Amino acid sequence: MSLINFIDYLGTFVFAVSGVLAGTEKKFDLFGVFILGLVTAIGGGTLRDILIGSTPVGWMNDEIYIYIIVSAIPFCYFLKPYISKLKRSFFLFDTIGIGLFTILGLEKTLSVGLSPLIAVMMGIVSAVFGGVIRDVLSRDVPLIFRKEIYAFACLAGALVYLGTCLMVSTDIAMIISILSVIVIRILAIKKHWNLPFNPA
Amino acid sequence: MSLINFIDYLGTFVFAVSGVLAGTEKKFDLFGVFILGLVTAIGGGTLRDILIGSTPVGWMNDEIYIYIIVSAIPFCYFLKPYISKLKRSFFLFDTIGIGLFTILGLEKTLSVGLSPLIAVMMGIVSAVFGGVIRDVLSRDVPLIFRKEIYAFACLAGALVYLGTCLMVSTDIAMIISILSVIVIRILAIKKHWNLPFNPA
Amino acid sequence: MSLINFIDYLGTFVFAVSGVLAGTEKKFDLFGVFILGLVTAIGGGTLRDILIGSTPVGWMNDEIYIYIIVSAIPFCYFLKPYISKLKRSFFLFDTIGIGLFTILGLEKTLSVGLSPLIAVMMGIVSAVFGGVIRDVLSRDVPLIFRKEIYAFACLAGALVYLGTCLMVSTDIAMIISILSVIVIRILAIKKHWNLPFNPA
Repeated sequence: MSLINFIDYLGTFVFAVSGVLAGTEKKFDLFGVFILGLVTAIGGGTLRDILIGSTPVGWMNDEIYIYIIVSAIPFCYFLKPYISKLKRSFFLFDTIGIGLFTILGLEKTLSVGLSPLIAVMMGIVSAVFGGVIRDVLSRDVPLIFRKEIYAFACLAGALVYLGTCLMVSTDIAMIISILSVIVIRILAIKKHWNLPFNPA
Repeated sequence: MSLINFIDYLGTFVFAVSGVLAGTEKKFDLFGVFILGLVTAIGGGTLRDILIGSTPVGWMNDEIYIYIIVSAIPFCYFLKPYISKLKRSFFLFDTIGIGLFTILGLEKTLSVGLSPLIAVMMGIVSAVFGGVIRDVLSRDVPLIFRKEIYAFACLAGALVYLGTCLMVSTDIAMIISILSVIVIRILAIKKHWNLPFNPA
Repeated sequence: MSLINFIDYLGTFVFAVSGVLAGTEKKFDLFGVFILGLVTAIGGGTLRDILIGSTPVGWMNDEIYIYIIVSAIPFCYFLKPYISKLKRSFFLFDTIGIGLFTILGLEKTLSVGLSPLIAVMMGIVSAVFGGVIRDVLSRDVPLIFRKEIYAFACLAGALVYLGTCLMVSTDIAMIISILSVIVIRILAIKKHWNLPFNPA
């Protein structure tokens, strides 16, 4: 298993935990909790695959994603009291995950012959739309539309990747761009960055 | 018309009636009521077809589904006072319908070369996601996420089908698995089964 | 650029402005406002393309749609106080837009070999589902399900187009059908037409 696979699976797990916890708060039953974990973890990549016409969607060819998502349920059940203490680790894995998902989504879109602009958009979709679908299904206004710099960290990471790819190997470009996502997201929280849109 | 076709069409009609009635309660207009009947009846199969890459989606090649859904509108308009008296028959047709939709969805997914695990998931999606989309569009938290054993009856039916297929013909396996769905769902209601998920 | 392209782009812009304004009212941030503009402008055509299996979805092959949608953001930011004064022009462009989107969606569906009934449905989906997705994401009950004759104007336009196509050239049929949409929508507002659905 390469490092990329490992980060991919870890990111999937952290996303699934976020969905399972959201379902728990809404008092969903076991099925609802599973579906919310599933859409949070793989909803973004699924939407990307549907839009670019790469079907059956990616996770259907690698069952390990399902096992990872299922395993998030007992994890949350038994460890819920401790998850809040793991918040910092989770935040880090989540941020590494969105960085990686952005780059993998971007690469997959380029690989089917679409333009860099569309690839950047699909990279962001891969990273953030799982959370959007989670919020729609649990009847919240999508969080990311209101107070997260999250999507812009993905945008920055995607642009850094496209730029550095011209100069260094894709492996190094990937590391640099994921680091950019992490730095931007941490700075955004420390400095209370946000992007209000208040026309006159 | 085979028995399978007949059950398929009857299930579609019962699902459409459920959508039309939901739209009526929300005071939707004629267009809204039609859309809600449509997504309830064919939304699950549509999502399955999109995910597995079987497009144009199935109902586009057989217009009878549209006619069945349209016919649910005058049915509800003229017979609304009597529908509550038909509740038992509707519950039975609905349960037979979800059992059949699960098996047909499972079979279609296997037929495009995907694995049994994915096929079971897509069987459940076929049977229950029409109702999820109905609830999202009418701005309810999806019912199935909170208090229905419905999805687990489909899961059980799918597993029974896969298991019995190894021993008997697919026709007999289908009958056995649909009967399992009916029995589980009736028992679930009589015995007040549910699947709460309450971590510490 | 043909007249059809020009109307297409103008309609896209007007739809995007409607999404951006909806996002502004909900106090979404810059990312949320962009996504809402995007789904309103191209969500209907995207859903049509996914359903009929024409992927990558259309706008991915013509980046001008993205530029048009992005340009709606500064437009709304700087001109918001004046937009209410432009209401009449906007209503006209919006109505021409839905007329055109209906016909283009219908034609695209016929071109992949689907039946006229499905083509009429997909024409309507192209014209109205961007607004439905906008409303779901901003957690409103879709407006069109409750008090707009909008979808029926599209239906009428689609039928007029199919009918006149048998007698005149497609260019003339397109003009006649778009005019029908405009006339029906204006009449609907002046005469307070609606389509309530109130079973006993």
